[in-house]
Amino acid sequence: MVLTKEELLEKAKKPGVDALRLHPFYKGKIETGIKCALRNFDDFSIWYTPGVAKPCLDIKADPGKAYEHTNKANTVAVVSNGTRVLGLGNIGALASMPVMEGKSLLFKYLGGVDAFPICLDTKDPDKVIEVVRMIQPSFGGINLEDIEKPDCFYILDTLRKDPAMQIPVFHDDQQGTAAITLAGLVNALKIVGKRIQDVQIVFNGAGAANVAIYRLLVAAGMKPEHSIITDSKGIISRKDESLKQSEPYKYDLAAQTNPGCVSGSLAVALKGADVLVSYGANGPGALKVDEIKAMATNSIVFACENPIPGMWPWEASEAGVKVFATGRSDFEGSSQINNSLGFPAIFRGTLDVQARTITDEMCIAAAYEIAKVAEEKGNLNPGYIVPTMDEWELFPREAVAVATKAIEQGVARLKKSKKELLEHAEAVIKRSRDMVAASMKGGFIKNP
Amino acid sequence: MVLTKEELLEKAKKPGVDALRLHPFYKGKIETGIKCALRNFDDFSIWYTPGVAKPCLDIKADPGKAYEHTNKANTVAVVSNGTRVLGLGNIGALASMPVMEGKSLLFKYLGGVDAFPICLDTKDPDKVIEVVRMIQPSFGGINLEDIEKPDCFYILDTLRKDPAMQIPVFHDDQQGTAAITLAGLVNALKIVGKRIQDVQIVFNGAGAANVAIYRLLVAAGMKPEHSIITDSKGIISRKDESLKQSEPYKYDLAAQTNPGCVSGSLAVALKGADVLVSYGANGPGALKVDEIKAMATNSIVFACENPIPGMWPWEASEAGVKVFATGRSDFEGSSQINNSLGFPAIFRGTLDVQARTITDEMCIAAAYEIAKVAEEKGNLNPGYIVPTMDEWELFPREAVAVATKAIEQGVARLKKSKKELLEHAEAVIKRSRDMVAASMKGGFIKNP
Repeated sequence: MVLTKEELLEKAKKPGVDALRLHPFYKGKIETGIKCALRNFDDFSIWYTPGVAKPCLDIKADPGKAYEHTNKANTVAVVSNGTRVLGLGNIGALASMPVMEGKSLLFKYLGGVDAFPICLDTKDPDKVIEVVRMIQPSFGGINLEDIEKPDCFYILDTLRKDPAMQIPVFHDDQQGTAAITLAGLVNALKIVGKRIQDVQIVFNGAGAANVAIYRLLVAAGMKPEHSIITDSKGIISRKDESLKQSEPYKYDLAAQTNPGCVSGSLAVALKGADVLVSYGANGPGALKVDEIKAMATNSIVFACENPIPGMWPWEASEAGVKVFATGRSDFEGSSQINNSLGFPAIFRGTLDVQARTITDEMCIAAAYEIAKVAEEKGNLNPGYIVPTMDEWELFPREAVAVATKAIEQGVARLKKSKKELLEHAEAVIKRSRDMVAASMKGGFIKNP
Repeated sequence: MVLTKEELLEKAKKPGVDALRLHPFYKGKIETGIKCALRNFDDFSIWYTPGVAKPCLDIKADPGKAYEHTNKANTVAVVSNGTRVLGLGNIGALASMPVMEGKSLLFKYLGGVDAFPICLDTKDPDKVIEVVRMIQPSFGGINLEDIEKPDCFYILDTLRKDPAMQIPVFHDDQQGTAAITLAGLVNALKIVGKRIQDVQIVFNGAGAANVAIYRLLVAAGMKPEHSIITDSKGIISRKDESLKQSEPYKYDLAAQTNPGCVSGSLAVALKGADVLVSYGANGPGALKVDEIKAMATNSIVFACENPIPGMWPWEASEAGVKVFATGRSDFEGSSQINNSLGFPAIFRGTLDVQARTITDEMCIAAAYEIAKVAEEKGNLNPGYIVPTMDEWELFPREAVAVATKAIEQGVARLKKSKKELLEHAEAVIKRSRDMVAASMKGGFIKNP
């Protein structure tokens, strides 16, 4: 059944309406669960005083034992200061909580990872760095989230280089988004029969996502000189030397791309381009049908603005786009460039081998596995370029790809076979899903 | 069946042996639970993008809505830097994790409170204060834990006075311990037929626990001039003016107590005393049978050192102690001064009315309700001065007492009737317990 434009617009409002009603119904999306047996009240003398003194002393003698005696090995902090939440901008740490709880829910349900939101009431990137350093004992990994640029680059780069950091730090808006975008692009290119090293790519927006996507695509074979990047003022170019001072990371990008030093608006950049990766202003209407029409035939457009994509799917059809994707799950017929296919399994694989870091190569391995899972279904098409969230075999397979790459690169503390990794990831993720089903059935989670 | 001394000693080792085996079996005691329905994959558009944007904006417009749209209202941070863990001393933040996870487990099981361990890798009290201020958005309350003195006093006092703190801050080693000790003493005095305003009380140890207990007992009617405090060097006295500089909080205590300016060891202080509250060096052998024998008849001894009490129960019997209690749950026949009877319900009551702080009066209300629940059973005796953890009606009743006092004192944001409070507390706590039982039955928690 094809919906009218009006019906589609109406439908696009529904998740927000439901969210406003259902968030207060549950008063939160995550809670503390108990994962050890409590057979009787004597067990408290094992889990708490006096018995607990022994595991404490064991960790004191050998810090690595924290991964055995506590949940550290499976726990990730979702750290944000709320300065750049979805497409809503700087709404602050408190208002970012629903997103960070949602993220924690996805970590658990899709990856079997125990995540907890740490929303920090500070805009100072050095304070964020300091807190992350200090909270390490409680966590096996750090997932940075929704922090404005350029602070997000500074925070991630500083922490990844910091010898005091003993656990991996990941910024989902950079590395996670880049991985799933690469996965989508790999399959979209198959559909249109073009090769990554040949295509002309326009990046609309020079924020955290696009900068990271650009870098990962280059690592995966895209030619920098085939790409053009635009920001809110238009095409960026090495001719604009003022950027060197004001936004050095942007000047770096300008120096690698746009070899003809083209200037002008996004419309100029789009003429004849094969691919548009757009993380610009929220729509609708931010991407113009006429301008998109001027792209090459069999064009690919990823309009990933959040929560409202730069253009609606029906506008993309009108503009003749061949493969159209957004960040949203609620548009039938178009694909979703969905971070949720990335971070839960990337962390699953990372934690399972106690990797010290999450390398670009681990993210690329995740991307190719995502693409492969979709391709193996034998039905790649513009509405299906990556798996959907309910094809849950994706997550364990992706975790194995990530963990295996970590072992290969020598950044893993533990070595495990692919078989071991797959069995463990499958069991852990299945348990998460089954527990939610059991809680709903048992009435611990009420029906809305 | 009465066990021999050897059997009792052997039994006292068992929790530690079990703990070393079972902590790695479960690899942690808490995990992230999902508390909202996931009926199908469309629900992700409610809990995460795009729907989640609406609750975010609602909180941005009205910060109080965070208590409706997220789990903040039921979430407590268990914050420690590991500088004074149980009786183990400064073992560090990482090694403190098993205790903080255990505490979180107790919060959930006994109080239905979602707690999360935040173990901070810093010894600087100002850093602890700074982190607590910054992490406020994620939490409805802060439970400080196992921080060395005098830093623990400084951190608690600073945060309680800080106008930037919008959520209550509690130090269980101070306020929680004081509440449960007062509860035990109230009933112990009934058993021996003495009155709080008449008894001579010795406090062995001038750490966080005893300082807080002293203050709360004074607020509850104990005469300061009937008390003597000892530290590791012996009786403290106002004659020792050097304390003014070196340990001002201790000089304050010396100035209020020990009116005769008695000097000497603990033995001197104990002669003829009615009550000993001991939070001194770990035993066994720290408290001497001969010295305890010199107390008044019908003496009361709370030997609360952790994990090994200053004397064994059989030594207390030998010394003629009438009511003997420790911090441990594994000695039959003696009582347990068990913090677990305090903090879960104190926070339950505090969170349920969104109290801005936890006052001494709220802790005293908790103490009297604990004492009352035990007394109502009609069987007060030296082995039963406070309820045991499995008398679970205690927790909702105590929560109501705390919440009601908060409302009365004008520190509660919400006003609720006792009936409403009781029904809610009962339902929340019952759900926690039932979930663990269901998880064990369903195989999500394996049998050890």
